Amino acid sequence: MSAKAKIGVLGASGYTGAELVRLLLHHPQVEIALLTADRRAGKPMADVFPQFAPYQLPVLTSVEQAEWAALKLDLVFCALPHGTTQKVIKDLMARAPATRVVDLSADFRLSDPAAYARWYGHEHFAPELQQRAVYGLTEVYRDQIKAARLVANPGCYTTCAELPLIPLLKAKAIDPDEIVVDAKSGMTGAGRAAKEEMLFSEVSEGFHAYGVGHHRHMAELDQEFSKAAGREVVVTFTPHLVPMNRGILSTIYVRDAKASAQDLHAILSKCYANEPFVHVLPFGATPQTRHVRGSNMTFIGVAADRIPRRAIIGSALDNLTKGASGQAVQNMNVMLGLPEEAGLEQVALFP
Amino acid sequence: MSAKAKIGVLGASGYTGAELVRLLLHHPQVEIALLTADRRAGKPMADVFPQFAPYQLPVLTSVEQAEWAALKLDLVFCALPHGTTQKVIKDLMARAPATRVVDLSADFRLSDPAAYARWYGHEHFAPELQQRAVYGLTEVYRDQIKAARLVANPGCYTTCAELPLIPLLKAKAIDPDEIVVDAKSGMTGAGRAAKEEMLFSEVSEGFHAYGVGHHRHMAELDQEFSKAAGREVVVTFTPHLVPMNRGILSTIYVRDAKASAQDLHAILSKCYANEPFVHVLPFGATPQTRHVRGSNMTFIGVAADRIPRRAIIGSALDNLTKGASGQAVQNMNVMLGLPEEAGLEQVALFP
Amino acid sequence: MSAKAKIGVLGASGYTGAELVRLLLHHPQVEIALLTADRRAGKPMADVFPQFAPYQLPVLTSVEQAEWAALKLDLVFCALPHGTTQKVIKDLMARAPATRVVDLSADFRLSDPAAYARWYGHEHFAPELQQRAVYGLTEVYRDQIKAARLVANPGCYTTCAELPLIPLLKAKAIDPDEIVVDAKSGMTGAGRAAKEEMLFSEVSEGFHAYGVGHHRHMAELDQEFSKAAGREVVVTFTPHLVPMNRGILSTIYVRDAKASAQDLHAILSKCYANEPFVHVLPFGATPQTRHVRGSNMTFIGVAADRIPRRAIIGSALDNLTKGASGQAVQNMNVMLGLPEEAGLEQVALFP
Amino acid sequence: MSAKAKIGVLGASGYTGAELVRLLLHHPQVEIALLTADRRAGKPMADVFPQFAPYQLPVLTSVEQAEWAALKLDLVFCALPHGTTQKVIKDLMARAPATRVVDLSADFRLSDPAAYARWYGHEHFAPELQQRAVYGLTEVYRDQIKAARLVANPGCYTTCAELPLIPLLKAKAIDPDEIVVDAKSGMTGAGRAAKEEMLFSEVSEGFHAYGVGHHRHMAELDQEFSKAAGREVVVTFTPHLVPMNRGILSTIYVRDAKASAQDLHAILSKCYANEPFVHVLPFGATPQTRHVRGSNMTFIGVAADRIPRRAIIGSALDNLTKGASGQAVQNMNVMLGLPEEAGLEQVALFP
Repeated sequence: MSAKAKIGVLGASGYTGAELVRLLLHHPQVEIALLTADRRAGKPMADVFPQFAPYQLPVLTSVEQAEWAALKLDLVFCALPHGTTQKVIKDLMARAPATRVVDLSADFRLSDPAAYARWYGHEHFAPELQQRAVYGLTEVYRDQIKAARLVANPGCYTTCAELPLIPLLKAKAIDPDEIVVDAKSGMTGAGRAAKEEMLFSEVSEGFHAYGVGHHRHMAELDQEFSKAAGREVVVTFTPHLVPMNRGILSTIYVRDAKASAQDLHAILSKCYANEPFVHVLPFGATPQTRHVRGSNMTFIGVAADRIPRRAIIGSALDNLTKGASGQAVQNMNVMLGLPEEAGLEQVALFP
Repeated sequence: MSAKAKIGVLGASGYTGAELVRLLLHHPQVEIALLTADRRAGKPMADVFPQFAPYQLPVLTSVEQAEWAALKLDLVFCALPHGTTQKVIKDLMARAPATRVVDLSADFRLSDPAAYARWYGHEHFAPELQQRAVYGLTEVYRDQIKAARLVANPGCYTTCAELPLIPLLKAKAIDPDEIVVDAKSGMTGAGRAAKEEMLFSEVSEGFHAYGVGHHRHMAELDQEFSKAAGREVVVTFTPHLVPMNRGILSTIYVRDAKASAQDLHAILSKCYANEPFVHVLPFGATPQTRHVRGSNMTFIGVAADRIPRRAIIGSALDNLTKGASGQAVQNMNVMLGLPEEAGLEQVALFP
Repeated sequence: MSAKAKIGVLGASGYTGAELVRLLLHHPQVEIALLTADRRAGKPMADVFPQFAPYQLPVLTSVEQAEWAALKLDLVFCALPHGTTQKVIKDLMARAPATRVVDLSADFRLSDPAAYARWYGHEHFAPELQQRAVYGLTEVYRDQIKAARLVANPGCYTTCAELPLIPLLKAKAIDPDEIVVDAKSGMTGAGRAAKEEMLFSEVSEGFHAYGVGHHRHMAELDQEFSKAAGREVVVTFTPHLVPMNRGILSTIYVRDAKASAQDLHAILSKCYANEPFVHVLPFGATPQTRHVRGSNMTFIGVAADRIPRRAIIGSALDNLTKGASGQAVQNMNVMLGLPEEAGLEQVALFP
Repeated sequence: MSAKAKIGVLGASGYTGAELVRLLLHHPQVEIALLTADRRAGKPMADVFPQFAPYQLPVLTSVEQAEWAALKLDLVFCALPHGTTQKVIKDLMARAPATRVVDLSADFRLSDPAAYARWYGHEHFAPELQQRAVYGLTEVYRDQIKAARLVANPGCYTTCAELPLIPLLKAKAIDPDEIVVDAKSGMTGAGRAAKEEMLFSEVSEGFHAYGVGHHRHMAELDQEFSKAAGREVVVTFTPHLVPMNRGILSTIYVRDAKASAQDLHAILSKCYANEPFVHVLPFGATPQTRHVRGSNMTFIGVAADRIPRRAIIGSALDNLTKGASGQAVQNMNVMLGLPEEAGLEQVALFP
């Protein structure tokens, strides 16, 4: 591809939108041709994210105004809220058949219409697209992503838990009925909507769980773990909020009668040996979110529990990068035939 | 007791020492008569903790200089490092038979000499005292504490996990072999020693586990859970560091074939109905550390997991207050026959 | 006063409301008889501030429902938004002539109707009360506060700057035309309204000034400094936001041809020698907000600049305590003839 | 230059060392050939900074072991402590005449031997190099830097204050005797040494000034401001610590009888119109440190004070990037004839 690919970002005034712009500005083979933010249409991007003031970027427009056919975009990232997403993507894909889409919402992640209706309380608005969407966990579905027109980018919690667990379930190395995922996320995972419980003074200097026993990411975990295990899997999953901006750490409790913690470590090390964005730490080492901050990297650690035949797995990623926009760019690279690491070379920002 | 009780604080330059002074300055029936801090001996307390500048307090001295008999202290809080503690307390108790001691270190928490030697790598230096020490989890051991001369104040992680789990184990309402404690602590739990990994820039904006599979608080958990269950109990326990000063949240995964999550909630609600410092939230509600910050309160929540017959318990306390110095003052009150809440009425500081 | 004073708190769902409840729950001579929070009327206080769950408190009601005459309140704290305040207080004071009021809003702080109209863009709705309100900087106006029916509790920034500067201006020890106040505040000063710029992710890990050249607290500073100097004073004042919950530090640059920095220190030390809530540090020492967190204390430090005849003054307080609700309780104590320190003995919570 | 330049980093275990590695790993035209860290010699870089685990880097060695002549390095970054620096650089420059040096310490910033001796308490150990060192404020000394063999990289506070003030002093647009710099820095500016006052629990949730009236960066400010003004300039400067990792904001109070705030804005806008790493915001806008985090950018804002003929300037940069390692890489690019922005294209990481 000699000319730069033309890219659109829908929902540029949110955090995943800003993260996409941060990464794409870097990317040598793409050009940002469209930025939308409905309530801020007509304003420069620097008004909603001043860090972009020194850069040339398209003025924000509204999704309504976008003439999909005329824009001739190679790929669109959709970072819109649940619900809106389905309608916008359906319309876009009808009008611009050559444009491909990476959707960062949860709208196309579940392939089972019944599961979707159960978790979201209504029938899907674009069931035919739902069937065709490819789940964008790059390391697992790379081949399907290459050919996909619509990629459903995974959630941040789910990416963090699936990268270590899918290979172990596939290898039948852990008991699928005995998985506990205790997950802790930074605040950017909750987005930029102005809600009382997300104010600085409500979040700093404290820690708590939320959505105990019921969180929509569970549907995604069930789907992928069941697929990997070849049978139904339901996990215990508890999300928590950490007073920090970026990062998810999942502490995962697994067990098996046959495999030792070292065996699990060996399986993961082998599986990810050549992956640029998954790094398995030496046995017994524990990952920290700060060491992947701002990068597209996932760090995985495996340690033995003191109780025999149980292991404790740590998985850390940046929820905005590998957990959202970074993986979206990685998927774009795969879809457009670009080098998979293009635009994603940033080393973590620590301290 | 008409005159105020005379109290000493050994190790006043650490965080638990400062927390003791904060609480005792408030207490209507005690007087701080001795403050030690070996490396700062001769300095005013305001030099090591400027918040005390407006108050009258004894000048810091060294433990060596303390003439235990002449001081005629009613009670001494010992907030010294591991090892030193055993020698200092042995000497103090020999020289001042009327002085009672609440020890905040881990030195006297394990009653089994063999367990102590296994976890700490050496024989106990004061095995006869080790036998006589009473474990200071006030709500559980109140009667023994009343009569004790030496109370071993529990650890912060252990208090947080034991308060919800001991009643459930005693009631045989949960499976003792299937307990996972995923614990998250603020930084003050690590003390005031200047170590690289505790620097602001190493801790803020990140999250990680530590001591995975091996942490000394496990010994204390084993002892107390086994006692409660009437059989050997070994739990899975993983501590994490939260970028905040104060607070521990334990997310505890339990299960049982017979008891439902509601049953567990009912047991805890009944058990703690009249306790001033343990508050069981309505079923399904989840505690936050910020709502107990600076107070001696423990908040406990019980919710059902989506997997049948499993429950998720949250337990939150301030590691420096109920997790250390607050419980120590509570124990002092019990030992000296003072109202148990005296000096501990502070409402949590939120926001 | 043998029976406990009956107290009302209007606006209990905001941070200053919660801080009032925290302090009053402690206070031995008052009883909380009314809590209002219009949007939360009918709910328990624990729903909006879970830290109060263990305590007995009146259910939240709306201001509309309050029958001022029948309630027979001794004193009402008004922590309502600008505008609403004037109408509510006018009505309350008309209906319940024996009830006294401490208003925490800015509505009654300016005594000059013209200044009020200029800064707030409209005529005052209760000009007769505006004239009668006493400015509640306790250390300066204690005698008038004793007799006042309506006290206008000062702002947090203004209290922090006025406590060091008023005595120096009165003593004509500094040049009134050469005062620069560079102020830094924690986030709770901005209240609990859900605004994008107050989200955790917008505030943490960063620092900035706001309201440069124009901030409503300037009107209050002008009024009090001019009164103290006996001539018009206009200061340079820049507020900043610190990623922390509580605390204001003002760094104040002053100068004079005659007085040295030591002279300024001597004036302040003498002035505040017997004040319970203002502590002047040794010459050259600099205050930290963490050392007054949660307490009603103000710490003041004076140091010499390296440029001759210039001094740098630091002033630190907790914006919710001495900067708002603590000083309001202090004023209540003065108004009701209670010991001025009652309910305000808490030592700062550090760490 | 067709082959990649060979680069060394001395002091790779500190924060400025890690930041150099982060930036150089990105840089298309250089190769990291040497990393030293005396106490960690023999270990992989990932042991001291785990974020580098996925990358190929030289094993850490000690400075002593470095054979300067044999290494044939094109350029060395020296991020060593004060004192050590002078001896190491003297030796290195004698043994490897073709190797150029960017020193990040304060050792070569002062060109006047008398000023050096006064501020540091001893004669300079390499006075002949002190004379030849070029002060590395790139935007001001670009031409001299090109030809320099030894560049003294400026301090973080000084870069932040000098970028807005040097052009104004050169233009004689402000009164050189009336400059107040109130500066606020994140914690990484204090380095990675384990000191009690830098612990998380000592720094979070609080704010304070330090070094009031005396701070070594003053010497550097005096030198550069005097040079720019063509007369002696002494400024008032107060540094503060913000509970955040990265970022400096300087709030600068200036005045002049002739120039208005708009004039000052116009001068700075014109001066920096074509500079890639200095961005002047629209008049009246105020910079935030978070919008330059992790980037080499400086954001400058100018606003009018409400007092006539006074202006308030805000200047924000990342102390580890433009305030240290980023500017060092910028200087390297200038010295080696590489594109000045190479390796420095990262957009700020916000949120």
